[in-house]
Amino acid sequence: MTIKPLADRVVIKMVEAEETTKSGIILTGSAKEKPEVAEVIAVGPGGMVDGKEVKMLVKVGDKVLTSKYAGTEVKVDGTQYTIVRQSDILAIVE
Amino acid sequence: MTIKPLADRVVIKMVEAEETTKSGIILTGSAKEKPEVAEVIAVGPGGMVDGKEVKMLVKVGDKVLTSKYAGTEVKVDGTQYTIVRQSDILAIVE
Amino acid sequence: MTIKPLADRVVIKMVEAEETTKSGIILTGSAKEKPEVAEVIAVGPGGMVDGKEVKMLVKVGDKVLTSKYAGTEVKVDGTQYTIVRQSDILAIVE
Amino acid sequence: MTIKPLADRVVIKMVEAEETTKSGIILTGSAKEKPEVAEVIAVGPGGMVDGKEVKMLVKVGDKVLTSKYAGTEVKVDGTQYTIVRQSDILAIVE
Amino acid sequence: MTIKPLADRVVIKMVEAEETTKSGIILTGSAKEKPEVAEVIAVGPGGMVDGKEVKMLVKVGDKVLTSKYAGTEVKVDGTQYTIVRQSDILAIVE
Amino acid sequence: MTIKPLADRVVIKMVEAEETTKSGIILTGSAKEKPEVAEVIAVGPGGMVDGKEVKMLVKVGDKVLTSKYAGTEVKVDGTQYTIVRQSDILAIVE
Amino acid sequence: MTIKPLADRVVIKMVEAEETTKSGIILTGSAKEKPEVAEVIAVGPGGMVDGKEVKMLVKVGDKVLTSKYAGTEVKVDGTQYTIVRQSDILAIVE
Repeated sequence: MTIKPLADRVVIKMVEAEETTKSGIILTGSAKEKPEVAEVIAVGPGGMVDGKEVKMLVKVGDKVLTSKYAGTEVKVDGTQYTIVRQSDILAIVE
Repeated sequence: MTIKPLADRVVIKMVEAEETTKSGIILTGSAKEKPEVAEVIAVGPGGMVDGKEVKMLVKVGDKVLTSKYAGTEVKVDGTQYTIVRQSDILAIVE
Repeated sequence: MTIKPLADRVVIKMVEAEETTKSGIILTGSAKEKPEVAEVIAVGPGGMVDGKEVKMLVKVGDKVLTSKYAGTEVKVDGTQYTIVRQSDILAIVE
Repeated sequence: MTIKPLADRVVIKMVEAEETTKSGIILTGSAKEKPEVAEVIAVGPGGMVDGKEVKMLVKVGDKVLTSKYAGTEVKVDGTQYTIVRQSDILAIVE
Repeated sequence: MTIKPLADRVVIKMVEAEETTKSGIILTGSAKEKPEVAEVIAVGPGGMVDGKEVKMLVKVGDKVLTSKYAGTEVKVDGTQYTIVRQSDILAIVE
Repeated sequence: MTIKPLADRVVIKMVEAEETTKSGIILTGSAKEKPEVAEVIAVGPGGMVDGKEVKMLVKVGDKVLTSKYAGTEVKVDGTQYTIVRQSDILAIVE
Repeated sequence: MTIKPLADRVVIKMVEAEETTKSGIILTGSAKEKPEVAEVIAVGPGGMVDGKEVKMLVKVGDKVLTSKYAGTEVKVDGTQYTIVRQSDILAIVE
């Protein structure tokens, strides 16, 4: 079973804390907005979103930084994902 | 009796919990926004909505992920539906 | 005495509860937004509204679903009406 | 002394309660927004308002329905008027 | 010393209460917004304001109705003025 | 060390109270917004700001009226400055 | 490991307090918004952001003034960074 995001939405999967430590990325928490590193699982087609042309900039497999409270959490076939808008993705880490 | 949604609105019907489990989709709840899997029952024609051209991307029979609090609930001929804007639909699941 | 709505406004008259039951439509209430079935009594001419072209999609006699708290209530010649914007109308029921 | 409204503004004068009853119009009150019937006394020239072309749709002498809390009250030469934007006028009654 | 307002701003000077009474204008107070009659002292050049072309409609010497809480008060050479945007001016009185 | 403001931002330096009195400008305080006279120290290049062309209207050395709570305060080489957007500047005083 | 910001985002690194004092820049704190001096570490490509063309004005190595609460904090390989939008950068200091 697959999730096909609409418009400018992106399905991401949080990278586990252990993995995070191994890769050397440690995210600081703040009261208002907690950033998270995640892997891109599926990318919407972009196109006209709210009357504006959106070009997708991330691709499947990218590691991205986003905000913890951005998006909506879903669990499909036992795995938890988050669906965010591309504009909620801050940066790609390499 | 049928519901014909206007503009960019979509009539959806929540998939029952049992059915959800069988299909392997389990949705996690959050305090702010609870996602739901639903089946598309009727789709508005799209067109100019709030001064912007909207093209409909979902079709009748699609299984979609949306937010629990999005839209307005109605009960027609004993069945409960929700009317959402297409922009409240996050993804199609297949 | 007649009410001629301006711009994208629509005059609707709530369908009585008895009539609602007979037609098989039962509307569920929610804390935030209660939908209502209503009959369209008068339709504004549309045209430029807030700098955007609005085409009227409903016509006199249509049964429509809208939100209870949308619009403004008026009583003319002993009958109570509600004046809503067309964008507050969710769907037409047939 | 005359009031010449600017842009899309309209000067209206509330129709007295007695007159309202005689004409058969009774307005229901709601906690959020109380409609009122009023007579149009002066109409602004329209034109570009907030970057959008506004065409005036009401004329002096029209009886209109508006919201009680819309606009600003002024008293000129002992008569009380309200200055509203045309978009605060819901309908013309005839 | 003179005040030269920028963009669509207008410098106004409240007309004294005595003068107001003499001219027959009495302004009613409301809890939310108190209108005031004022004289225009200086007018900005208009032009592009927030991406929109603004044409100035008032001129020095005009008596105008505005809202009490609109704008910012300044005292120059012992006289108190208010600087408002032209869109805060409701009407010209003659 | 110099501050080069970006886009439509302007660096201003509050004129001291003594100087203010000498020049005859006394600013009244209000609970919501306290205006201030200030001298322009540096002016951004203008250009496209938030999708709109902004032309800079103030120049270094201008005495301007602005709001006390507008902008962000910085201290460089022992002198305190405020960085505001040009749209926060109400008028030039001469 | 590097951070590649998307769209109009900029990765900055706060300049240490000691360094700040040495360079003669002392930032005053306010209850609402505390400015900070920071060094630009990485700059997004700009381009169409929310339907508007954004041209990047800062470059790697620039010392910039921004607001303390703007952006999202991340820690990569033991160093703490902040990711802001370019529009949150007030000025470049030289």
